Amino acid sequence: MPIAITLEELSTLLGDRLSRSKSDLAEHGRSESYFSARPPDAVAYPRTTEEVSAILRICNRNGCPVVGWGAGTSVEGNALAVKGGVCVDFRLMNAVLQINAEDMDVVVQPGLTREELNIALRDTGLFFPVDPGANASIGGMTSTRASGTTAVRYGTMREQVLALKVVLADGKVIETGTRARKSAAGYDLTHLFVGSEGTLGLITEITLRLHGQPEKIVAAVCAFPQMDAAVEAVQATIQMGLPMARIEFLDADTVAACNAYSGTGFPEMPHLMVEFHGTEDGVVHDVQRFGEIVEDMGGAGFEWASQTEERNALWTMRHNAYFAILASRKGATAVVTDICVPISRLAQAVEETRADIADSPIAGPILGHVGDGNFHAILLVDEENPAELAQAKDLAKRMADRALLHGGTITGEHGIGMGKLDLMASEHGLAWSVMAQIKRSMDPQNILNPGKVVRLAEHN
Amino acid sequence: MPIAITLEELSTLLGDRLSRSKSDLAEHGRSESYFSARPPDAVAYPRTTEEVSAILRICNRNGCPVVGWGAGTSVEGNALAVKGGVCVDFRLMNAVLQINAEDMDVVVQPGLTREELNIALRDTGLFFPVDPGANASIGGMTSTRASGTTAVRYGTMREQVLALKVVLADGKVIETGTRARKSAAGYDLTHLFVGSEGTLGLITEITLRLHGQPEKIVAAVCAFPQMDAAVEAVQATIQMGLPMARIEFLDADTVAACNAYSGTGFPEMPHLMVEFHGTEDGVVHDVQRFGEIVEDMGGAGFEWASQTEERNALWTMRHNAYFAILASRKGATAVVTDICVPISRLAQAVEETRADIADSPIAGPILGHVGDGNFHAILLVDEENPAELAQAKDLAKRMADRALLHGGTITGEHGIGMGKLDLMASEHGLAWSVMAQIKRSMDPQNILNPGKVVRLAEHN
Repeated sequence: MPIAITLEELSTLLGDRLSRSKSDLAEHGRSESYFSARPPDAVAYPRTTEEVSAILRICNRNGCPVVGWGAGTSVEGNALAVKGGVCVDFRLMNAVLQINAEDMDVVVQPGLTREELNIALRDTGLFFPVDPGANASIGGMTSTRASGTTAVRYGTMREQVLALKVVLADGKVIETGTRARKSAAGYDLTHLFVGSEGTLGLITEITLRLHGQPEKIVAAVCAFPQMDAAVEAVQATIQMGLPMARIEFLDADTVAACNAYSGTGFPEMPHLMVEFHGTEDGVVHDVQRFGEIVEDMGGAGFEWASQTEERNALWTMRHNAYFAILASRKGATAVVTDICVPISRLAQAVEETRADIADSPIAGPILGHVGDGNFHAILLVDEENPAELAQAKDLAKRMADRALLHGGTITGEHGIGMGKLDLMASEHGLAWSVMAQIKRSMDPQNILNPGKVVRLAEHN
Repeated sequence: MPIAITLEELSTLLGDRLSRSKSDLAEHGRSESYFSARPPDAVAYPRTTEEVSAILRICNRNGCPVVGWGAGTSVEGNALAVKGGVCVDFRLMNAVLQINAEDMDVVVQPGLTREELNIALRDTGLFFPVDPGANASIGGMTSTRASGTTAVRYGTMREQVLALKVVLADGKVIETGTRARKSAAGYDLTHLFVGSEGTLGLITEITLRLHGQPEKIVAAVCAFPQMDAAVEAVQATIQMGLPMARIEFLDADTVAACNAYSGTGFPEMPHLMVEFHGTEDGVVHDVQRFGEIVEDMGGAGFEWASQTEERNALWTMRHNAYFAILASRKGATAVVTDICVPISRLAQAVEETRADIADSPIAGPILGHVGDGNFHAILLVDEENPAELAQAKDLAKRMADRALLHGGTITGEHGIGMGKLDLMASEHGLAWSVMAQIKRSMDPQNILNPGKVVRLAEHN
């Protein structure tokens, strides 16, 4: 691969917005979980779609790998430059291009983070609900089909993305979708790109649905004597049709880690954290009914938080859970699991997972967005200990197999990246080769985030 | 094309479930709008996915076109055999395979109609909300990304389809998606097939989300002095966030046609028909607030219908509107338009369309699912009069251009079929060629519903 030629051409195009500095390469070669560093050969900071197009023309001509980069918060090594090449960092493309308040939509650039977007929307009466915890970029969230705590009510990125501007492997720029709420005009390319992790094109504009800021928000937290009682409370709540905005499960180990990390004093028992959005009356009604379910299931210590500050403290604690768990074992890194099952199988899947972890030497607190059947075990491993890493990967593999056995999926929201590539065949069978066919037809040179999502015999 | 050989092989496979009877060919060569008959060479009635796979293996080997057939209710010639070949009619594959009430999902075969599905669900407390008017098949609705009156509340087929079993062009059988509520496991093949109109594969199983039957349903109908007042009432209702389950617009001509056809006696003025689903209290509250908007906009004759029979009568009238309009001109056929625009542009788009039709010699009542910005003009033409047909097509073309100008789409719910093929380039530009690329990679011989959705230089 004539990388030197590519970098020279890119340098002419971008000037000092093509960086080869050690710190830049290191920053764009790390991930937030157990993968070892895979730095790119250079980092590009484009300002416009036209520049992204020019970058791809150059890279495609030279067969040089291109990996998109948002906020670097993914946990499956989704943006690691496993074949080297150029990392395209979208931080300079972080504008809000249009707020269409009447139509409840917004057009943004991919480098904008979800928190920045919500700040820009503050005075419109609207908000963008998808909340994966991390302050991820909208481009990254789109590319991994992210979701998080609020998906049970508002859906995932799939439900929010109306339209895209995408630069294809050869530099051609296409637009998919429109601002209309629905369309039957041909193949749904928008949703082919959502979740494709930068392997089919680089997204440079995203049109998102917005939602009305709720009149009233109440959060509640409660403890359960046993994990299964908490999970059964979730199933009952869902099946009763209570419109929760969030419903999160934290096991006793997660609560202990959060207490230590955030200075909170919750009893070290399984917890549910919920939030209701609605009218003043509606929310009171929902919280009451939820309280009854909790009581039926033996839950205790049911506490409301209707003040913004209290709620923020709760969700900050929840959002820091991953780092709290990491901090609970000195020097540890994590194999993060992410299965999602039909809600009727949730209690069983969580219990089987708990038992499997308990039988292993690995520590693995369990938590998750259980309202849509999605949960994680954060398997803590010593980076320097290959045996531990292997044991954790075995546990993760068994969790994925269990998800499939229960009619679920190997990843609810983190995507495939490097971490789940070996599990794709068991979830998709022959359909995985259809993905490879599509990839080949759209990126024949395999320059776009090579080594991720699909496996191409001739390249990987 | 060695059609005789193909039919011989298919006949051996299917026996008398391969039909070449005149009546069968005629039935499968007609459409519900202006397209002239395009019968297939034979009609196959498979019973299993394995048989569909065998049919496709035979047809692919022989380069024989294959067109899927559901209930034959599409209006863009979506299932016409424009290149001849074999029509695969799914009427014998109409089973409900699984009802998973706890998970609120169902697995069905494609030949099942939406009314049959709701009958099967009656005792479960659940229902399938998508309602395009016609008693379409679930397979057809999936293939055209159908929606209809309830999409404003429950979404379109895109939001309901969780998973598919699909037979590819070469006979391979794949499964896409799972019963989990969300997944980030690779390319969203499920939603690539939804709306692909049988050009990428034949769908043989569909897993659908279901919804809880509402505690209370109230429908209401009201008249407006002017079309724009009615449309502005819709915009105000949407922007206030009132959760309508349906909100339909009928112009004065449509109401007149419905009165004549269904024997109703509504004033011949623009009307809105709405429906609210919810709790007893919630619905009363919603209807009240809607009544206030109607009054503000000068609406009158606001009538509620909370009894099932009254409501059914109203919606039957609405569902018959297409046939009522057809019947309003003797011997006429229709060019059906179907644009969808952002809600802020709706009033303007409808008014421009009305004025354009008024300036033409063509009669074209306007009606639509205006809650999501989608409306139709039913352009009535004399089948024997090519000049009229050309004028109607010009009007339709201007409507589509107008939709794009307003940031919308050329088809909200009917799909492309034959009727909108010439408009695809203006909506999608270069993205249309990406669709063709995907089609080529998945159906290199172009046997699957050839001549629809995409245009392949070497074949069409």
